[in-house]
Amino acid sequence: MSETENTPFERVALIGIGLICSSLARVIQREGLAREVVAFSRTEETRKKAASLGIVDSVADTPEEAVTGADLVVLGTPVGAYAAVADTIAGHLAEGAIVTDVGSVKGSVIDAVAPRLPVHVHFVPGHPLAGTEHSGPDAGFDTLFQGRWCILTPLEETDAAAVERVAALWRRAGSMVDIMDPSHHDLVLAITSHLPHLIAYNIVGTVTDLEDQTKREVIKYAASGFRDFTRIAASDPVMWRDIFMNNREAVLEMLGRFTEDLSRLQRAIRWGEADTLEALFTRTRDIRRQIIAEKQA
Amino acid sequence: MSETENTPFERVALIGIGLICSSLARVIQREGLAREVVAFSRTEETRKKAASLGIVDSVADTPEEAVTGADLVVLGTPVGAYAAVADTIAGHLAEGAIVTDVGSVKGSVIDAVAPRLPVHVHFVPGHPLAGTEHSGPDAGFDTLFQGRWCILTPLEETDAAAVERVAALWRRAGSMVDIMDPSHHDLVLAITSHLPHLIAYNIVGTVTDLEDQTKREVIKYAASGFRDFTRIAASDPVMWRDIFMNNREAVLEMLGRFTEDLSRLQRAIRWGEADTLEALFTRTRDIRRQIIAEKQA
Repeated sequence: MSETENTPFERVALIGIGLICSSLARVIQREGLAREVVAFSRTEETRKKAASLGIVDSVADTPEEAVTGADLVVLGTPVGAYAAVADTIAGHLAEGAIVTDVGSVKGSVIDAVAPRLPVHVHFVPGHPLAGTEHSGPDAGFDTLFQGRWCILTPLEETDAAAVERVAALWRRAGSMVDIMDPSHHDLVLAITSHLPHLIAYNIVGTVTDLEDQTKREVIKYAASGFRDFTRIAASDPVMWRDIFMNNREAVLEMLGRFTEDLSRLQRAIRWGEADTLEALFTRTRDIRRQIIAEKQA
Repeated sequence: MSETENTPFERVALIGIGLICSSLARVIQREGLAREVVAFSRTEETRKKAASLGIVDSVADTPEEAVTGADLVVLGTPVGAYAAVADTIAGHLAEGAIVTDVGSVKGSVIDAVAPRLPVHVHFVPGHPLAGTEHSGPDAGFDTLFQGRWCILTPLEETDAAAVERVAALWRRAGSMVDIMDPSHHDLVLAITSHLPHLIAYNIVGTVTDLEDQTKREVIKYAASGFRDFTRIAASDPVMWRDIFMNNREAVLEMLGRFTEDLSRLQRAIRWGEADTLEALFTRTRDIRRQIIAEKQA
C-alpha cells in the first residue's frame, strides 16, 4: 500500500448522510481514514439517527458548520441540491480542502458546483457505482463499495494529487477506480442505470393504474420479472427525480433508441414475426455472458 | 396430509426435460410420487444428459413411447410445440390418464391441446410461477417451486378429482395452488412476467446496437439496473418467442399502456416537470411494500 493510501484525513464533512455517505462513514471508521467525521443532514430526524448509529463523530446543524476546518468535503445530497449547498459552503471551505461528491450524474454537477467554489479548493467529482433500493443512514453498510467501480471525472485543471487522494479513499472502500470524461460518464450511466430505473418506475406505474382486482393479483403473483422491477422502482424518489432532471439529454437519447426498438418488437408480436423475436432473444443472451465474464476477469 | 396427496402416480411421462420438468422430476424422486418417471426430449444430447443426471428412470426416443402406460403426462416443451405433441401422443394415451402442462400462457394452450386429446383423458392446464434464466435439465433443482404459486386453469368440464391430483403434486413441490380463468391468467402474466421480459430483452438489444467502445463500457460498468435486466434477457429464446406468439393480445394491450405511460415520462423529462416524476416515483414505492407484505402474509 502506498504512503498516500495510509494518510488519513483530518476532518471529513459528509453533506447528506443517506445510503452512500453513511456507508462511506462506516468505511472511514473501519479503516481509520480520518481523525474526525462530521455529518450534516437537512432533517433533524436523520441527524439524530446518524448520531445514534455511532458512525460519525458528530452531526452539524448547518453545512457551513460541517465544512469548517474540513480537509475533505463529500457532497451526498440529491444532485438537485448541489448548487444551493455549494453557495452555502463556499465561504467556509478551508484553503486546500478537497470537495468531492457521489452523485449519479457528472456534467450538470460540474456546471452547478465548479463555478461556485473558491479557487483555493480542489473539486474532484466522483460517482461510486453502488447502491441498493433502500435509503437513509441505517440502510448503509461498510461493504457496499466492495468490488464495485468508482468513476472520477476531474476537470482538466484539477490537481492530480487531490484526485489521487480521493481515488485512494475509494480503493480503501474496496472499489476499483476509473477516470472518465463527464459527458461520457453520463451517456454510459444513462443506459446502464438511468434508463433501467425509468423503465422500472414506468412499468410499476402502469400496474398502479390497473383496476383493483387485477392489481391485487399482479401483486400476489408477482413473478420474477415484475418483482425485480418493483425492487428497482422502490429507489429514492427525490434522488431519481434529480438524476433525470440533470441527465436529460443522454436519457432522452437512449430512451429514443429504446422506444424505436420496442416499436419494432411490438410490430413483430402483432404480425407474428417469430424469427425476429428469436433472433433478438438469442443476441441478448450473449451480453449477459460478457458481463459475467467481465466480473470474473 | 390427505390420502390423495400420498397417492403416487404409476408412471409419469415428462415431455420435454428442461428447467421446469427436470425440477419436477427431482421433486417426484425426493417425495416418492411415482413408481416410474420417463422423460422425452427432442434432442439426443438432452436425453443423454437427463439420463446421466439420474433424475428419471428412463428416457424415451419418442413422445408416443414416453406416454404409453403413463397415468400422468406433463407437457414441458416450448408452448409453440404443444399442438404437434398433442397430435403425436393422442392415440397413445391410456384411459383415464391426466395430461397437464407447465406453459406460461393458458388460453392458446387450451385451444391448441384440448381439441386434440381423446375424450378418455383429463386435461388440467397448469403454470408453476417459477423459473430462473437458466435452461436445460442440469439447471433444475428440487426447491424451485418452494413457496411459489402454481396456477391451474381447468376447463368447465374437467374432472375435479384430476384437478385435485395435479394440485396435490404441486403442493408436494412446496407450491401454493390457485385456480383461475385462462384468459385472466394470461392478462395477469402479461404484466407480471411477459412485458418485463420483453422490456428487458429490448433494452439489452438497444445496448448491442451501440458503438463498440460505449458497448464495452456498458458491460464493464453494468450498474445494478442494467445487470438485473441482462439476467432476465438471458432467458430461453425459443420458450419466450413462443410465449409472445401465444399471448399476443394481452401483451399488446399491456405494452400499449406501458408505452403511453412512458411517453408521458419522456415528456416530463424533456420539459423539466420534476413534480410529475417525483409523484410517480413515490407512488411506485408503495407497490413494492405491498409485494413484500404479501410474501410475509
